[in-house]
Amino acid sequence: MTSPITDYLEAVLRDCRDSDGGEVLTGNRILSEADPDVFSVAVVTVEGTVYCAGDVDSSFSIQSISKALTYALALADRGLDAVHRKIDVEPSGDAFNEISLERDTGRPRNALINAGAIAAHSLVEGRDVEHRVDRILALHSAFVGRDLAIDDDVFDAEMESSDRNLALAHMLASVKVLECDAHEVVTGYARQCSIDVTTPDLAMLAATMANGGVHPESGDRVATSAVVRQVLSTMTTCGMYDGTGDWIANVGIPAKSGVSGAIIGVLPGQLGIAVHSPRLDDRGNSVRGVEVFERLSRDMDLHMMDIAPSGHSAVRRAREEDGRTVYELQGDIRFAGAENIMSRVLADLPDEPTRIGFELEPARAVNGAAVRLLGELIERLRSDGHDVEVDDPNGLM
Amino acid sequence: MTSPITDYLEAVLRDCRDSDGGEVLTGNRILSEADPDVFSVAVVTVEGTVYCAGDVDSSFSIQSISKALTYALALADRGLDAVHRKIDVEPSGDAFNEISLERDTGRPRNALINAGAIAAHSLVEGRDVEHRVDRILALHSAFVGRDLAIDDDVFDAEMESSDRNLALAHMLASVKVLECDAHEVVTGYARQCSIDVTTPDLAMLAATMANGGVHPESGDRVATSAVVRQVLSTMTTCGMYDGTGDWIANVGIPAKSGVSGAIIGVLPGQLGIAVHSPRLDDRGNSVRGVEVFERLSRDMDLHMMDIAPSGHSAVRRAREEDGRTVYELQGDIRFAGAENIMSRVLADLPDEPTRIGFELEPARAVNGAAVRLLGELIERLRSDGHDVEVDDPNGLM
Amino acid sequence: MTSPITDYLEAVLRDCRDSDGGEVLTGNRILSEADPDVFSVAVVTVEGTVYCAGDVDSSFSIQSISKALTYALALADRGLDAVHRKIDVEPSGDAFNEISLERDTGRPRNALINAGAIAAHSLVEGRDVEHRVDRILALHSAFVGRDLAIDDDVFDAEMESSDRNLALAHMLASVKVLECDAHEVVTGYARQCSIDVTTPDLAMLAATMANGGVHPESGDRVATSAVVRQVLSTMTTCGMYDGTGDWIANVGIPAKSGVSGAIIGVLPGQLGIAVHSPRLDDRGNSVRGVEVFERLSRDMDLHMMDIAPSGHSAVRRAREEDGRTVYELQGDIRFAGAENIMSRVLADLPDEPTRIGFELEPARAVNGAAVRLLGELIERLRSDGHDVEVDDPNGLM
Amino acid sequence: MTSPITDYLEAVLRDCRDSDGGEVLTGNRILSEADPDVFSVAVVTVEGTVYCAGDVDSSFSIQSISKALTYALALADRGLDAVHRKIDVEPSGDAFNEISLERDTGRPRNALINAGAIAAHSLVEGRDVEHRVDRILALHSAFVGRDLAIDDDVFDAEMESSDRNLALAHMLASVKVLECDAHEVVTGYARQCSIDVTTPDLAMLAATMANGGVHPESGDRVATSAVVRQVLSTMTTCGMYDGTGDWIANVGIPAKSGVSGAIIGVLPGQLGIAVHSPRLDDRGNSVRGVEVFERLSRDMDLHMMDIAPSGHSAVRRAREEDGRTVYELQGDIRFAGAENIMSRVLADLPDEPTRIGFELEPARAVNGAAVRLLGELIERLRSDGHDVEVDDPNGLM
Repeated sequence: MTSPITDYLEAVLRDCRDSDGGEVLTGNRILSEADPDVFSVAVVTVEGTVYCAGDVDSSFSIQSISKALTYALALADRGLDAVHRKIDVEPSGDAFNEISLERDTGRPRNALINAGAIAAHSLVEGRDVEHRVDRILALHSAFVGRDLAIDDDVFDAEMESSDRNLALAHMLASVKVLECDAHEVVTGYARQCSIDVTTPDLAMLAATMANGGVHPESGDRVATSAVVRQVLSTMTTCGMYDGTGDWIANVGIPAKSGVSGAIIGVLPGQLGIAVHSPRLDDRGNSVRGVEVFERLSRDMDLHMMDIAPSGHSAVRRAREEDGRTVYELQGDIRFAGAENIMSRVLADLPDEPTRIGFELEPARAVNGAAVRLLGELIERLRSDGHDVEVDDPNGLM
Repeated sequence: MTSPITDYLEAVLRDCRDSDGGEVLTGNRILSEADPDVFSVAVVTVEGTVYCAGDVDSSFSIQSISKALTYALALADRGLDAVHRKIDVEPSGDAFNEISLERDTGRPRNALINAGAIAAHSLVEGRDVEHRVDRILALHSAFVGRDLAIDDDVFDAEMESSDRNLALAHMLASVKVLECDAHEVVTGYARQCSIDVTTPDLAMLAATMANGGVHPESGDRVATSAVVRQVLSTMTTCGMYDGTGDWIANVGIPAKSGVSGAIIGVLPGQLGIAVHSPRLDDRGNSVRGVEVFERLSRDMDLHMMDIAPSGHSAVRRAREEDGRTVYELQGDIRFAGAENIMSRVLADLPDEPTRIGFELEPARAVNGAAVRLLGELIERLRSDGHDVEVDDPNGLM
Repeated sequence: MTSPITDYLEAVLRDCRDSDGGEVLTGNRILSEADPDVFSVAVVTVEGTVYCAGDVDSSFSIQSISKALTYALALADRGLDAVHRKIDVEPSGDAFNEISLERDTGRPRNALINAGAIAAHSLVEGRDVEHRVDRILALHSAFVGRDLAIDDDVFDAEMESSDRNLALAHMLASVKVLECDAHEVVTGYARQCSIDVTTPDLAMLAATMANGGVHPESGDRVATSAVVRQVLSTMTTCGMYDGTGDWIANVGIPAKSGVSGAIIGVLPGQLGIAVHSPRLDDRGNSVRGVEVFERLSRDMDLHMMDIAPSGHSAVRRAREEDGRTVYELQGDIRFAGAENIMSRVLADLPDEPTRIGFELEPARAVNGAAVRLLGELIERLRSDGHDVEVDDPNGLM
Repeated sequence: MTSPITDYLEAVLRDCRDSDGGEVLTGNRILSEADPDVFSVAVVTVEGTVYCAGDVDSSFSIQSISKALTYALALADRGLDAVHRKIDVEPSGDAFNEISLERDTGRPRNALINAGAIAAHSLVEGRDVEHRVDRILALHSAFVGRDLAIDDDVFDAEMESSDRNLALAHMLASVKVLECDAHEVVTGYARQCSIDVTTPDLAMLAATMANGGVHPESGDRVATSAVVRQVLSTMTTCGMYDGTGDWIANVGIPAKSGVSGAIIGVLPGQLGIAVHSPRLDDRGNSVRGVEVFERLSRDMDLHMMDIAPSGHSAVRRAREEDGRTVYELQGDIRFAGAENIMSRVLADLPDEPTRIGFELEPARAVNGAAVRLLGELIERLRSDGHDVEVDDPNGLM
């Protein structure tokens, strides 16, 4: 039996296949030869289940989508503050090919425009350009879960039209944002953009981000959650160039696009999504890619501002057992869940000392804030004379 | 027993009270007389539980925070498309007092800068300026859950320094974004900014947004979820002026600030938060307000990009009962949850026809996308010859 | 006998009449009804001779050309420094309808864009709006040499679409550049723009500027040369909006255009020129007006950077008379002329004392710098023992 | 006897010597070592007389002043239209280190900002970078009248901080404004900026421009008047970066400055002026250089908008001789002069045929426009039956 999700994805491709408009990128010799009709979509859950449809074996260069993980690597190597001193995290309000350096400092507005991506590349640690590129390639491979390679033809073609990037690199060097040689950085950046991927690769990469930096299949942590959070935040406010506000309002999924026609979307805690179709709109985003994301968001209620109330279910039920009120806790318990538990307990609490139990077995996870709050609750209950038992067979607290 | 959350909020105020810097707004006669030391915080859950600390009875004018609900009312009155033709949803990349109209059309960049807020005010339906203001005031009252009033002293002072807003209104009129009289709109806008509120009021208002437009206490729907989603999306990308990118990266909570020193934050599905402290930084945001939000986000893990994987727990467990495999579903089931259920069922499925049951009793909610996906799953299972029973005592599907 | 110049002007109109393109202004009810085919040119010398061709009796509103003399009146009333504190003199690099206020101060970039013109209007002294307008009208009448009047129909139509100017006025008020009521200023400015003129009027106005502020016919001084110099300097760098650089390179005549289709040009010391034809190009300049100016500049060698060497002729000749070397001085003697005289005298000077004469009768004028230099020369010659006689029947020195 | 002009220049240096403020350029290793106190001024007339004062033997690199003649050479090599397609002639409204490329085309705003100067360098014809530099150096030598050389130390230091220029060159290459290799162009441009000159050299260079492209001493034409006119026009509207409007209003002399502390000024038909003092203001202009120019302009009435009426004197007098009215023509006769002659003759003209004579001996020059107008006048007089004789011993007509 095929999954209804796979069937659904195929239906979406069918519906969007004929959407007209858009042109394959012309500035790059190799990219301009791309088949304008290839079309694919892939969705990967944080558990690693992969759904896909269309030309999923067709590969292409990753282009600007590589900006996300290169920024992640710079953050991991240098720390958030050091990177922030060189690259801001503000939307530029400009088109993707604008220069967008901060007026006084020359600092790029964010790491997802070209100037900021070049700066981020230069902040990746490495003995030389090759070492730096190897480390970037390795991080992409780790996020995807297979060994990726660079497409040398695309790289050669990139280098034939590298004047704009050289301009940006020299500009950054002139204001001391770039610390190494401009040509080396542009070469390395062109290699990073030429990493060869498929749509399922990108969806897996996005799912690793959705999973907070842990690869859904291997369970390997390939980036810290702090780094992933910073990258996703930047994608939220700056990921789709000067159309980011519209994108967040319409689609509501942090995303990043590339001129080869791919777009990735990350729904934290849920899904990674990737679409590929080479014809681009004026902003450099895939025409059909945007359309597919709009469909998925609308049909599947994926908008990040549509998160349903989740605190309610923290107390599965309270049962009386041997003269003790036992609260069965469930789900992922975070601040709102812990607050929910406390409210319930305090509402039930009689004036005189009583016996209370917490059964954590049905719960899946309790995060740090919730552990602290529940710990505080238990301590206070006990100091008020209540008898509290905690049954936590999985050691969640 | 006081709640640990209340104690925590009081500790936060204590820690941030001495943070220096910032100046009370000078441009307005009344606002400039504000006590620079008043300081309060309130947190309201989507269930309506209120926690607060500090000078919670001190009231102040709502100022720019009124932009959010006025935009909501314009969206409700005119529809998303009609409003979008007049007001874009892109970050401006400019300071809050920049003009930021779209180059060719004169369309304001978004509804949370002054030009866009004035345009949004003019799009609210009403016979005249008073009717329009009455409707805006009524919506604020509905979100807060009590009858609010306008502070006439603040309003009078606003009108004494209204040149900049008049400039914006005439500019909008000149490009046909504004359809009614510029002076009327500026008067109405000044009244809207003079709505008198407290910090708990604002936290309740934010909680109603977090709850998708349903007031947490009364359960009344006061705005559609589509309208709230659009407002929250705009707050995400444009809520803190030219510091929005930084804010989302650091704090990760959609927010809106006002020059009286208040900031609201909305964590969809979880919480509404408000802080008030009149001393402002260069960007016009409350100095201590920003600090409190940073503390809350860090201490309580409230960053929106830190959402823990939530799909995992959709199947509480599968039990064998009378020769039937019964899947107990739990939590809020959305796309990722439905996918999780399907994966599990399909993995378990034997080649020959079998008997399957779904028990929805433990689940709290199943959203539209999940209903469709699970319905499709059940239909396919049945057409493949499986015997499927659904136990849905609460009618979630 | 008709003048060859008149015939030439008629030929130019004939040649340019069919030049296509351009549209009559649409934004103003009255201006939009202008006959698109009226076409006229006038040239007035600094001696007051008038040449004209075409529809010279057709009148029209002066529009932005009034910015030049209103600026002149503000300069006369307040002084250069006081005006400069409110209005800069830099080109804006922007289109004519851009706002172009200085980033930090809100000071308009120059007095010939709308914001600067509104600021200049407000700086004209006057008891009220009518008094201010009366004084502006009076100055225009004085420059033209006849009593001008305001076209009330044009004024009424201006007021119907005054939103943009109101926006600018309120913006200026908000940064304290404007000291009086925004509506009053916009009303007064609309009246000033509605002054009714003909092409010969404008050419005479320009000739008065070319003549340093002295009306060519009456000989009345209607503005100081310092004020006229400031106005002409501003016209040189900012007169034709964002096409000023091109205009100075191609035409080389300080100029100002108005949306009724007129352009004036001022060749200091030589001519005032005016052309009128209502069809405008994208920049708001008269299409045929620009063409006529290009023709006149090219045919008549009027480019301001083509000034022929003029110092050479200061010594008409030196004659020996009664044992004295008499230098006959001629022309307008300025610094370069005085230098020329000195060089000649010092080159001729023998080692021993000699007898020298200066005959100023053939000269027309000697400016202050030249008087000082020649005075210094004579004093030194005398202190070196030379016998110097000065024959200055017209009291030029 | 020393010239009063020399004495005057020495007095000006004395007065301005103590003006404080300004800093020697820090970005270049060699320039930063310049003696901050060297100070000199030179004035050269269009007849080649040289006046100077101060440290006139001190030499320095020409820097941005070389932009003027490099632009001249590009114009000579490619023609005005071809150059205009690559480089606009509009003021940028930006600081000197802004990028200022036209929004859509990437065309630099003018040839006197760095981007435009680099583009102009690339438009100079040459087999290779050395040939191009040789031709630029040769043109500078021709304008100055001696063989100039390049200071290799300055050049080496320039190349050490060439990132900004490399950025501009690559940016221009990316939009096809630059046709040759970016590094070659930047190298050539750095060499051009390193030409070693003295203040008298620069004043002579400026005097050659003032003389319409003819060297004042040798009489050699080293550039066409059309090219010089274009360069001077650009200096008028763009020569002093974002302070050009102020400069033209205050000083009124087309000028160009360089970061080594020199400023040249050109008064067409009269003078070339140069000042050198290394301490710079915020705009990169020499502090004392600006002050000296302000003094010279004010003391010597050199403001270009102060040109005295010059048409008046074209008819020296009319005498009756043998029954013929003979008009004695004088001075430089241009359009306004020819008009003046015609007006006089037509005013005198009786109804019946008469006898008229024109005596050109006292005149110095008659330009093309005047030859055509006077020719037309004579032809018409003759066809009306008048007897006209022309005495033109010097062949001016």
